[in-house]
Amino acid sequence: MKTTLSVIEITAILVFAYSGMTHARKNGFDYIGVLTIALVSAFGGGTLRDVLLGNHPLYWIAHWEFLIYVFLLSPIALFLLRFDKDFSSHRTLMLIDALGLGLFTASGVGIALEMKTPLLPAAFIGVITATFGGVLRDVLSTQKPQLFQPTEPLYATCAFAGAWIYISMLRLDFQPTLALIVCIAVTFLLRTLAIIFNVRLPF
Amino acid sequence: MKTTLSVIEITAILVFAYSGMTHARKNGFDYIGVLTIALVSAFGGGTLRDVLLGNHPLYWIAHWEFLIYVFLLSPIALFLLRFDKDFSSHRTLMLIDALGLGLFTASGVGIALEMKTPLLPAAFIGVITATFGGVLRDVLSTQKPQLFQPTEPLYATCAFAGAWIYISMLRLDFQPTLALIVCIAVTFLLRTLAIIFNVRLPF
Amino acid sequence: MKTTLSVIEITAILVFAYSGMTHARKNGFDYIGVLTIALVSAFGGGTLRDVLLGNHPLYWIAHWEFLIYVFLLSPIALFLLRFDKDFSSHRTLMLIDALGLGLFTASGVGIALEMKTPLLPAAFIGVITATFGGVLRDVLSTQKPQLFQPTEPLYATCAFAGAWIYISMLRLDFQPTLALIVCIAVTFLLRTLAIIFNVRLPF
Repeated sequence: MKTTLSVIEITAILVFAYSGMTHARKNGFDYIGVLTIALVSAFGGGTLRDVLLGNHPLYWIAHWEFLIYVFLLSPIALFLLRFDKDFSSHRTLMLIDALGLGLFTASGVGIALEMKTPLLPAAFIGVITATFGGVLRDVLSTQKPQLFQPTEPLYATCAFAGAWIYISMLRLDFQPTLALIVCIAVTFLLRTLAIIFNVRLPF
Repeated sequence: MKTTLSVIEITAILVFAYSGMTHARKNGFDYIGVLTIALVSAFGGGTLRDVLLGNHPLYWIAHWEFLIYVFLLSPIALFLLRFDKDFSSHRTLMLIDALGLGLFTASGVGIALEMKTPLLPAAFIGVITATFGGVLRDVLSTQKPQLFQPTEPLYATCAFAGAWIYISMLRLDFQPTLALIVCIAVTFLLRTLAIIFNVRLPF
Repeated sequence: MKTTLSVIEITAILVFAYSGMTHARKNGFDYIGVLTIALVSAFGGGTLRDVLLGNHPLYWIAHWEFLIYVFLLSPIALFLLRFDKDFSSHRTLMLIDALGLGLFTASGVGIALEMKTPLLPAAFIGVITATFGGVLRDVLSTQKPQLFQPTEPLYATCAFAGAWIYISMLRLDFQPTLALIVCIAVTFLLRTLAIIFNVRLPF
């Protein structure tokens, strides 16, 4: 189980980073921009979580091997993009992204609760962890955040639902690992359904 | 007195949040965007204060009931905006905003001084607390910050004056509550005069 | 030696602040905007370093005399800009900026290592310290960060090289002051060569 979660974590981080790279390239940034936007997309949400909670050292400082994975990914991404192969909206990547959405939500909620955060702000921290990498990516590219666009299928909403599932299961004394799996599964399912049926916020 | 200050605090937070909501709607954001911009407008300055000072837990984590108030405000705001009733530049709201400007400045200065911040940076922290919610709101909407526009009447300047009044009175051993009231009153007066006479920075 | 380093630090901060002021003026900001962008340009990178590392009090809170220097610089800058004298791309300023690039990189790496940061993230913190004041300046002006533009000569790359020189020398037990000087010298040299020969990232 732990291995499965690690695989989800690593692939999700790489998918977040990859989509950041294609985003940076479309904005005409050079390699410094590509790398920065990739790192911000992958680690921005977790960094904001840790800074808001006062939780040090930061995730990417403690687990700096992830920085290397993103480095190693960058030449591959640049190679693909050179031949106009943008896979960032490919179905497989969106599915991995949806898994990451659930995992990062749970990680945010989990760390927040450990630090005695009340339930509602803990749920918010979960959503911020999962979604604000993308918001920071957009802000650094001076684009209106995709997260706020009424044309996009549900994203933060799925994370918010997942956060409450996770909180509820922990409060009902379910095993943390089970709660984590259910949180990822529910968030993933909601997000996948939102994409398939193009479900958007009605207001 | 304490009740009066609480009433000012809550109404000011709601006014900040409401003006964020109208701002988000004008930018065409969906409900996630409306809620995020509302929360950032209301709590962004205080969050920046706490992060810069290393003061944890954050204001909205300790007082998460304020998150609920903003939640409850959102359907009302959306309802009004649906009928094109934008009250965000209404005189009453500007007056409450001016009260909040003074209160948040004092809160920033107060917490900074408690944490042994020297006077000049404490005054800066006060101004940041009161004004950077709006700056973050504008950055998230990729608009040039209103705070920096030469067409706007004095805002940060009033907060800066209020911050020094507050600091001076505390140093002269006035009662903290009295200093707070005078700070709010002076900031409010300056801001109101700036609006009435359209006073702007000459350079 | 210590005096020389202090002189480099102060002049570099003033050059960063000055270039922020001209940047703000070109964006049509008023004095509040000019001052904010100047402070963000000068202290934004160091602030981000301290916030990411959880290192309090912040640099500009402990050394608030630097805030006063920036204040004192502002009328001079506004006076020069009024007569259309924009010296911000003048050769002398670019040289001082290049010295600052090296010094701030080393300061970031140094503080990161003191706080037990592993080497790779420490190098990143060094680059962030030296370059993110400019990124925050651009974000606050809603402009795509200059740091990411393929038309600009190497900047972050020089800082990254300097960071590794500094780390290597410290690990090889060279004297810290010597390591600092070599880091500044190498970063300065690389940056100067990049400007002269207009060296840019090839991808």
